[in-house]
Amino acid sequence: MTTDLLPVRRALLSVSDKTGLLDLARALSARGIELLSTGGTARAIREAGLPVRDVSELTGFPEIMDGRVKTLHPKVHGGLLGRRGVDDAVMAEHGIEPIDLLVLNLYPFEQVTADPEAGFGDIIENIDIGGPAMLRAAAKNFAHVAVATDPAQYAGLLQELEANGGALSLRTRFALAVAAFNRVAQYDARISDVLSAMAEPSDEGARNRGLFPAQFNGNFVKVMDLRYGENPHQQAAFYRDLRPAPGSLATFTQLQGKELSYNNIADSDAAWECVRQFDAPACVIVKHANPCGVAVAATVAEAYEHAWATDPTSAFGGIIAFNRPVDATTVRTILDRQFVEVLIAPDYDEAALEYAKKKANVRVLRIPFAPPAPGFIDARRVGSGLLVQTADDRVVTRDELKVVTKLAPTERQFEDLLFAWKVAKFVKSNAIVYARDNRTIGVGAGQMSRVYSARIAGIKAADAGLVVEGSVMASDAFFPFRDGIDAAAAAGIKAVIQPGGSMRDAEVIAAADEHGIAMVFTGVRHFRH
Amino acid sequence: MTTDLLPVRRALLSVSDKTGLLDLARALSARGIELLSTGGTARAIREAGLPVRDVSELTGFPEIMDGRVKTLHPKVHGGLLGRRGVDDAVMAEHGIEPIDLLVLNLYPFEQVTADPEAGFGDIIENIDIGGPAMLRAAAKNFAHVAVATDPAQYAGLLQELEANGGALSLRTRFALAVAAFNRVAQYDARISDVLSAMAEPSDEGARNRGLFPAQFNGNFVKVMDLRYGENPHQQAAFYRDLRPAPGSLATFTQLQGKELSYNNIADSDAAWECVRQFDAPACVIVKHANPCGVAVAATVAEAYEHAWATDPTSAFGGIIAFNRPVDATTVRTILDRQFVEVLIAPDYDEAALEYAKKKANVRVLRIPFAPPAPGFIDARRVGSGLLVQTADDRVVTRDELKVVTKLAPTERQFEDLLFAWKVAKFVKSNAIVYARDNRTIGVGAGQMSRVYSARIAGIKAADAGLVVEGSVMASDAFFPFRDGIDAAAAAGIKAVIQPGGSMRDAEVIAAADEHGIAMVFTGVRHFRH
Repeated sequence: MTTDLLPVRRALLSVSDKTGLLDLARALSARGIELLSTGGTARAIREAGLPVRDVSELTGFPEIMDGRVKTLHPKVHGGLLGRRGVDDAVMAEHGIEPIDLLVLNLYPFEQVTADPEAGFGDIIENIDIGGPAMLRAAAKNFAHVAVATDPAQYAGLLQELEANGGALSLRTRFALAVAAFNRVAQYDARISDVLSAMAEPSDEGARNRGLFPAQFNGNFVKVMDLRYGENPHQQAAFYRDLRPAPGSLATFTQLQGKELSYNNIADSDAAWECVRQFDAPACVIVKHANPCGVAVAATVAEAYEHAWATDPTSAFGGIIAFNRPVDATTVRTILDRQFVEVLIAPDYDEAALEYAKKKANVRVLRIPFAPPAPGFIDARRVGSGLLVQTADDRVVTRDELKVVTKLAPTERQFEDLLFAWKVAKFVKSNAIVYARDNRTIGVGAGQMSRVYSARIAGIKAADAGLVVEGSVMASDAFFPFRDGIDAAAAAGIKAVIQPGGSMRDAEVIAAADEHGIAMVFTGVRHFRH
Repeated sequence: MTTDLLPVRRALLSVSDKTGLLDLARALSARGIELLSTGGTARAIREAGLPVRDVSELTGFPEIMDGRVKTLHPKVHGGLLGRRGVDDAVMAEHGIEPIDLLVLNLYPFEQVTADPEAGFGDIIENIDIGGPAMLRAAAKNFAHVAVATDPAQYAGLLQELEANGGALSLRTRFALAVAAFNRVAQYDARISDVLSAMAEPSDEGARNRGLFPAQFNGNFVKVMDLRYGENPHQQAAFYRDLRPAPGSLATFTQLQGKELSYNNIADSDAAWECVRQFDAPACVIVKHANPCGVAVAATVAEAYEHAWATDPTSAFGGIIAFNRPVDATTVRTILDRQFVEVLIAPDYDEAALEYAKKKANVRVLRIPFAPPAPGFIDARRVGSGLLVQTADDRVVTRDELKVVTKLAPTERQFEDLLFAWKVAKFVKSNAIVYARDNRTIGVGAGQMSRVYSARIAGIKAADAGLVVEGSVMASDAFFPFRDGIDAAAAAGIKAVIQPGGSMRDAEVIAAADEHGIAMVFTGVRHFRH
């Protein structure tokens, strides 16, 4: 039914993005391939002195309606959809010439709609009709036609034509067809996203479109299959966005080590997002989705020492992330001391990487550093549903803190409070973080009532041999009762940061005053479940 | 530029799904609307005795290539894309007649590919080329054309034609256009899903396609905007799958109460998925994503009493789910005793609903019961990425349990072990559940090391005034050291269920034997982060 090698004799070129067009046209022409083209693409090829035939000449029908109708014609689509060996007679009867190669990219709908000021008319006019129709026709008929949709594909295409004496293999044609269908799926997804977010078909509707369209469409590119999911009996894979944000986890390069697991990736994300909040050198150790030690210090080595000391038991087999390049001394200290699942940093000294090779199983990731970018949309599955939300990227500044107790925090305490607050944001709710001198002292995570999280933070600090006396406490949400404050006071906490907003704030403030604790309200909550 | 009311004079009908076709054709014909059609649709209309004109007569070009090319013609697309008032002259010049209404649905690609035995040829032939091209053309030109893609839209369409003297409003045309683009986005998403999951273009490739395609495409329908996300400074919305599974959370009906919040929905999902594991009447109370009390009993009333008693503090403001219809007595007991965010059950007595009205804020959800269906794909976001996995729907049976200690559990203990195991699956890792007599006694959740979860379960039981002595313990993953068993023994635990598989299993088993504890291995882990 399908020939493995397809000789390319006629190509239709119609591109919105002219990158690499002329080099491609020149190379195809030099191979004796007849070029068909439309509008601006035809003009560009002709101006380069290459022979090109207008599609309107092929169809005997002019381009009309400002280009709305030019290729939607049986002579074009018959040429793309005709099955060699099956439809030859009907093609001959109707003068349909086979088109062996389609090179086409689409009107820039995504770019135009990325501009929040784009008018409704611009949006509608950039919905390509003829382009997707041809891409889809050629892709469906990959048994007899090849289709390219991206200038990045041109070089490979020419290479294969050269290697195969002017023909393309079935394997290549199928891969190109899948790429074309993938591209069309992305294109139609964005059209649905944009139009279904508008209340009305007008410039006002276009400019005030909602963040959450009536139909939400996502397209993700597979990075790798995973050996298994959160548990060994679950199958899993890791995907990335079409255009990952600089500095995001999905931009990692693995420099050594075993294959990443599902849980490695989830924990790496928590560790990396937490550590890149800090300006000074910082280290975050994550275990079971929670930071179990965090510190900021003068060097990454010192930051690691302090982070590790919070909870050495939990740090065993953890994910360790840094926001600064890591040197050989630090890598040696870590690897000689403890079992590590994943190391993450913006970069490593050569000597550090050399040393890491001694523990060949340890996964070492490099993520080029960039500060968190706005606009990330979070999503989580529930039974046959999807909860979608903007990222929790709110940063509370010193100026926003409201002192609510008689006693105000000292400068030193303010610094510790803001540090503890940044950590609490990444601890599973209910979250309580004890901290002092830019390092965590105890982390109470994941409890169904807040007072238990406070008790756990205290227990963990005691078990690690750390002195709570003089530390500060951060709570990701308000205290519903005074018991959390009482527990903290008993442990030696001297300052507290929390959102405030409880019906019993007065009672909670009175408790702090009673214990001689300074307390500030953020007005911001950081649940993370 | 656009007329608000569009008189419909000519309609093109081309449907793969013939549902409602003849009623629609009859009604349109009765309004004096000229019908154009293709292939089987035209035949069906003609056989019903209605006047219909073949598209091939309009185009002057026959249907060729087994229907691959029939509507891809400027007379069709010019009729769909022509702007009344702008393109009138060029339309007249080329004999293009305006088409005011397109009624079209697509080749059944989704149905065909849902059959795992579908061959490659069937898959490719069911990729509709002409259909999406027409849908997209008509939708782009909604200013002058109306487009219907779903038999469910026909009745409304006819109603509006009747109300407006044969015309359709701009608002309706835009809504229909958005629906058409949404539909095309779904269709192209499935084509990309299917083709990009194949290793090769053959029947073998079609039948052995991977679970995780190279491009993963999701389409979700908005159920509602939410007041905010996990925190008040985050924007959020709730979406559902195109076809929610029976019995899944997304099929809920809210019978009363305040608007659901983001956290309500997330917690409701955990509560509902946990409770529908049980066959006997069961109650699950969830707080901050963790079950804080679970029980199985003879009645829902008793199940609630036992679940509540595990941790009355945490149960305050919780989500309460049942797997059986709920009666008035149970609703009264709950509402008179405690603050509740959400009540969930397959159904309620009329008297129960009547009583609930007294607490008008309480959200009451009905979810028609169905056992969990296989095939659910879980997904979670990480930085610019997506972790995708099959659901953790593995159920461990009594036969699979392997007794590893000298002492075997009693029949009563086996029952409690399997109960505790089902609960542990829904507790955030590391998860430890103490249980006795089909009820939870203490839940230790979300800790970075397992021994702390065991300690917390004990602390919580003691604080709730429950006796641990004689209870069983479930652990969602293996014990890396004997310390967790020692802690459990000290608390009075008599039997343990856990996956096994630690390098130190021998040490852990010896500890159990030492303490006179019976222990079984499941061979299955249930991490849930």
